[in-house]
Amino acid sequence: MNGAVRALEVAQAAGTEICFANPGTTEMEFVSALDAVKGVRPVLCLFEGVATGAADGWGRIRGQPALTLLHLGPGLANGLANLHNARRAGSPVVNIVGDHAGWHLAADAPLASDIESLARPMSRFVRRVGGAGTIGSDIAEAMSAAVGPPGGVSTLIVPQDAAWDDVAGSPFPGTREASDGQRASGLEGDALERATRVLRESPSTAGLLIGGRLDAPSLEAAAAIREASGCRVWVDTFPSIIAQGRGVPAFEAVPYFPEQASEALSGLETLVLVGTKPPVAFFGYPGGRSTLAPDGCTTITVLPPHHDPAPGLLALAAALGAKPAAAPTGGAIEIPADAALDVLGLGAVLASRQPENAIVVNEGATSSLGWGLHAPNAPRHDVIHLTGGAIGQGLPASIGAALAAPDRRVIALQADGSGMYTLQSLWTMARENLDVTVVVCANRAYRILQFELARSGNVEPGPGAQSLTDLSHPELDWTRLSLGMGVPAVRVGTVAEFDRELARSLQEPGPSLIEALIS
Amino acid sequence: MNGAVRALEVAQAAGTEICFANPGTTEMEFVSALDAVKGVRPVLCLFEGVATGAADGWGRIRGQPALTLLHLGPGLANGLANLHNARRAGSPVVNIVGDHAGWHLAADAPLASDIESLARPMSRFVRRVGGAGTIGSDIAEAMSAAVGPPGGVSTLIVPQDAAWDDVAGSPFPGTREASDGQRASGLEGDALERATRVLRESPSTAGLLIGGRLDAPSLEAAAAIREASGCRVWVDTFPSIIAQGRGVPAFEAVPYFPEQASEALSGLETLVLVGTKPPVAFFGYPGGRSTLAPDGCTTITVLPPHHDPAPGLLALAAALGAKPAAAPTGGAIEIPADAALDVLGLGAVLASRQPENAIVVNEGATSSLGWGLHAPNAPRHDVIHLTGGAIGQGLPASIGAALAAPDRRVIALQADGSGMYTLQSLWTMARENLDVTVVVCANRAYRILQFELARSGNVEPGPGAQSLTDLSHPELDWTRLSLGMGVPAVRVGTVAEFDRELARSLQEPGPSLIEALIS
Repeated sequence: MNGAVRALEVAQAAGTEICFANPGTTEMEFVSALDAVKGVRPVLCLFEGVATGAADGWGRIRGQPALTLLHLGPGLANGLANLHNARRAGSPVVNIVGDHAGWHLAADAPLASDIESLARPMSRFVRRVGGAGTIGSDIAEAMSAAVGPPGGVSTLIVPQDAAWDDVAGSPFPGTREASDGQRASGLEGDALERATRVLRESPSTAGLLIGGRLDAPSLEAAAAIREASGCRVWVDTFPSIIAQGRGVPAFEAVPYFPEQASEALSGLETLVLVGTKPPVAFFGYPGGRSTLAPDGCTTITVLPPHHDPAPGLLALAAALGAKPAAAPTGGAIEIPADAALDVLGLGAVLASRQPENAIVVNEGATSSLGWGLHAPNAPRHDVIHLTGGAIGQGLPASIGAALAAPDRRVIALQADGSGMYTLQSLWTMARENLDVTVVVCANRAYRILQFELARSGNVEPGPGAQSLTDLSHPELDWTRLSLGMGVPAVRVGTVAEFDRELARSLQEPGPSLIEALIS
Repeated sequence: MNGAVRALEVAQAAGTEICFANPGTTEMEFVSALDAVKGVRPVLCLFEGVATGAADGWGRIRGQPALTLLHLGPGLANGLANLHNARRAGSPVVNIVGDHAGWHLAADAPLASDIESLARPMSRFVRRVGGAGTIGSDIAEAMSAAVGPPGGVSTLIVPQDAAWDDVAGSPFPGTREASDGQRASGLEGDALERATRVLRESPSTAGLLIGGRLDAPSLEAAAAIREASGCRVWVDTFPSIIAQGRGVPAFEAVPYFPEQASEALSGLETLVLVGTKPPVAFFGYPGGRSTLAPDGCTTITVLPPHHDPAPGLLALAAALGAKPAAAPTGGAIEIPADAALDVLGLGAVLASRQPENAIVVNEGATSSLGWGLHAPNAPRHDVIHLTGGAIGQGLPASIGAALAAPDRRVIALQADGSGMYTLQSLWTMARENLDVTVVVCANRAYRILQFELARSGNVEPGPGAQSLTDLSHPELDWTRLSLGMGVPAVRVGTVAEFDRELARSLQEPGPSLIEALIS
């Protein structure tokens, strides 16, 4: 058995079922091994950013590591932006990056580069495999580091001779199944006790901020804490995955712009953190500040980022003697009269049409604001957010989510500008026949940058600045782009058209794309 | 004047005319500065890999640095693969990478990452600007380092406060124009003398290997050296840019596969290197070796990589008393009878139709082999090669080449698999109305990987391995993809159709795409 087969067998034993791949010559042994090891399914992506974003989506849904298979430094580099998002989400992702055989490295062949330096910024765990004899234990450690806690990105650099050499007598490594106790072990010192006290004693100046992987039980615990203590509760602006919809407690998100966030958090004297860190501004502005909580506000970290927040929230609720809060019933969603589609109309239609238990991958940016208003009243669903701000995550993560949960409908709520970053995703959706409804919100602009340009003081941009935020010349035709990659597509421009086409798409198996022109 | 304006003014004074950009919030001051500094033209790219590849193409044609404007670590990461190619070509490229304001870095905001670690593997020069007071001298140094010699990639990390702060009294840095003497200063010690001696005394066992930026005078000097000494001459497998066609001396390229390369170089005792380094295998194979020249072969480096080879070749020719060799007249190109298009037919038609002085950006991979056979008999042209093996260079480099030489026709000879990496390039071609003829060679496979899979011993690949090299399910429709981004497109399947559509495309201004189905 060669090193590649051993590596995949160990990965499979540790919970991996899938490998998002764009291999090259240095990964040929892994390509062959994917036939030898039946339990790891290869999924071809036509660009590495698709592979890493898909692995992130799979990991967020499953909580187990997805593999990627990438081609040396440039292949890894192409996947780094979505690994950045995975890192910020604490997603379990394991990258296998092929490299030249050890004896060939000194030659500095054309594709050689410093893979470690590329990998470290986006990886919790980086290791170069020393040979076929250790590849099994190396990948076992990479998988374990990815699952955590804290979860994150592991990158294993595999010189090709470690893949093609025989593992000889090296033993199959024992897999380590983390116990519940271990998983909860992120609970920090006496933080739980201090947090309980402050929430009980000073609820008017104490708040709870939650982030990470927020499932319904976690949110129900947070609601119980709110009801028992009277404290305020916020969720991170971009949690990695959050349950939402009718029957699921909803909380205010920390606002995106720092001045609004500071206003929301004003008056706080203590902030209890579960699964997150003290909130900071997404960007710094002249005269602005980094921290969003008021000066002097104390923070108590019950669980740091990239730990499942559930044990912390359940323990806090128990310590407060909190009773389950009544589930919110949700309001009706009013669909506006037929007219040209705008952000509000799109959001209302989508929130009212989306099926029970959907996964909404939200990279809609400014175009998702209307949906955000209505989504708490939609059927229960999960939302995957753009955690790291590296655009081009939505379509790839939708692939991963759909493969991770084949019984659920995935809705990619996608801005057009960021969608263009990884549009190759559509091909893999077609190839794998994934139940994904892609809604491209076509405002034909980097709208957020138009806001930011004005915020920077340039309220009457010249032609150069305008050209850098404008996508209307030429107009992108997403229906053609989609059809070109094998995904059926239509264009809509009115509320009624969108309503009709969305309903149709959601009922059809396989992927389809709706280009929604936003006025 | 703020730091951003100062930086662009200095860049312009140092020879930059263009900025390939995909900015975000941290680059808003640069976006505004592109209106204030009229001599630097912003070109929007819908993905950073397009921007860096375009800068590489511009730099290869002009020999001056093109700017890119990229958004923090993830934006740089998206551009790294094509920076890897630029690095291997020694292309002058200067990246401006925005970062959070200095005071905001400690907050570890969502988009923060270790930009230096990402930049170093692909950059000769990496610097973080300390403030607006030094940004002018910092970018002057970055530009100087990019031009070299040796030329290469510079990455300047600009915290946003250095862009928005006033430069106050800091002086405009003096620009340094390298003298001819400086540019030739790469000539190493007594290497010229030793090389002259060995070529004169042992021509049957001495060879000359040339690489880098090979213009017609350099190739004519190499031909004169060959004629005067009787030595053998090779060019690198992938020189950064090379003149070719009727009247231009042609040389055998070092073969791609190492066993063929070793065979070609067998018997060599001394190899004289001008603008390159000792040849190594592109990949290592089991039982193979890194070096391609025979054991014991001595190398003499007249000029190392990323130096203009011309001074070395001219000096060598002069030392040998070489006379100009007769210009080759070139043979006729026979176009095969009409039939289904194959690699040979495509190559013959393209070589015979391409206009005088075209720039051919060759990322055709296996599909370009036929063209490679006929191109020495084509009208004179320049070829841009995939120097670093990081695929997705061809379409972006075509943008840069077309903007660098608006009076020349650019032909992107593009494989379908690698074309999908940066297909967003088509939009910028349409927006800028560039005279680019894109020929997509649609064999619907990663053909080279099918060869490599067989070379690795897997001659009957299973369904998993097959799926990872196959692009036929679903079939990519490049005409739709192209039309979706505003570039007119047709599909052809026969020699006659290709001949007709190519002739039409080459006569029309602006971009167009031909999807050539290769049987």
